[in-house]
Amino acid sequence: MEILKKRILSDGEIHEGNILKVDGFLNHQIDIPFLQEIGKEFYRLFKDENINKILTIESSGIAIGSMVAQEFGCPLVFAKKSITKNIAGDIYLTPVESYTHGTTYGVIVSKSFLGKEDRVLIVDDFLAIGNALDGLIHIVKESGAELVGCGAVIEKGFQGGGDRLRKKGIHVESLAIIESMDCENKTIVFRD
Amino acid sequence: MEILKKRILSDGEIHEGNILKVDGFLNHQIDIPFLQEIGKEFYRLFKDENINKILTIESSGIAIGSMVAQEFGCPLVFAKKSITKNIAGDIYLTPVESYTHGTTYGVIVSKSFLGKEDRVLIVDDFLAIGNALDGLIHIVKESGAELVGCGAVIEKGFQGGGDRLRKKGIHVESLAIIESMDCENKTIVFRD
Repeated sequence: MEILKKRILSDGEIHEGNILKVDGFLNHQIDIPFLQEIGKEFYRLFKDENINKILTIESSGIAIGSMVAQEFGCPLVFAKKSITKNIAGDIYLTPVESYTHGTTYGVIVSKSFLGKEDRVLIVDDFLAIGNALDGLIHIVKESGAELVGCGAVIEKGFQGGGDRLRKKGIHVESLAIIESMDCENKTIVFRD
Repeated sequence: MEILKKRILSDGEIHEGNILKVDGFLNHQIDIPFLQEIGKEFYRLFKDENINKILTIESSGIAIGSMVAQEFGCPLVFAKKSITKNIAGDIYLTPVESYTHGTTYGVIVSKSFLGKEDRVLIVDDFLAIGNALDGLIHIVKESGAELVGCGAVIEKGFQGGGDRLRKKGIHVESLAIIESMDCENKTIVFRD
């Protein structure tokens, strides 16, 4: 998605440790008209799949998920993160390792909001190692719902999560795939 | 807002300790077309105020904030919660007490995204005691931005936060104000 690549180049900040900050338009201050375009692009990519539920994870997936769900005219469910790994109730719960923080947290979705009648598109802001997506995919499968695919706004191709999921046969679409980043020269190379 | 009151009565669950669960349409599974109507209502209430930024707090304010920002055609900024109360960097940080959890957390907004050029509408899902709103209001004032008002989807009138802020001269609009709830009989009385 050309406007996204341009926006990453103009507003993204590269920091040490392969960190790309897009706080100015994607996950702290959110450019809502821009996100509407992102929603439309995911709709274009998945519109023939009879999707009836969008699934994401708090917090930075929620605004994106809202704009995607708006295009599909369907509900958004956002998974909650909890440091408590044992919570009672009718929930799907799976542990996810945080690459950034070196900790493990629980990802939780209420059983009321995901089931075998659902055709689910998972969306998130970033796809890197893919740990969060793995957790969400696990929950979709446990619920008996049909996983239609996964959409990431920005994929860090060099961290391999997207290609690992594609090799498993999962339909993964990322609107911009970063092949490499150079913190010193402030350059970003996108995959074609 | 009549459709909201009806939805609370049909889908809300009253639990002990004055807890109203609206997980089915507002803050876990989100009815996006319904939220668009909520966004339009806040726009109707504040459209003459030259608002150029919507401020909310993660996580359950983000979807609402997105729909409100969409109506105003302006960016959304969501404040982050952190258990770490001392974080370096160019941020506004204020401590907020959690009534529900009995703990204190830090509410954080980057200084890059709020300043004296901004006319801000704060929105959130619930207004009860008003601690989270107090924190956001404090940050808006610290930034030099103009606080235009606060919008809550559901106000628990009996917990007093909304009226306390109104007495201070802040323009607070809540789309449904609950005067009382009865857990045993499952009844809700709205303020006229």
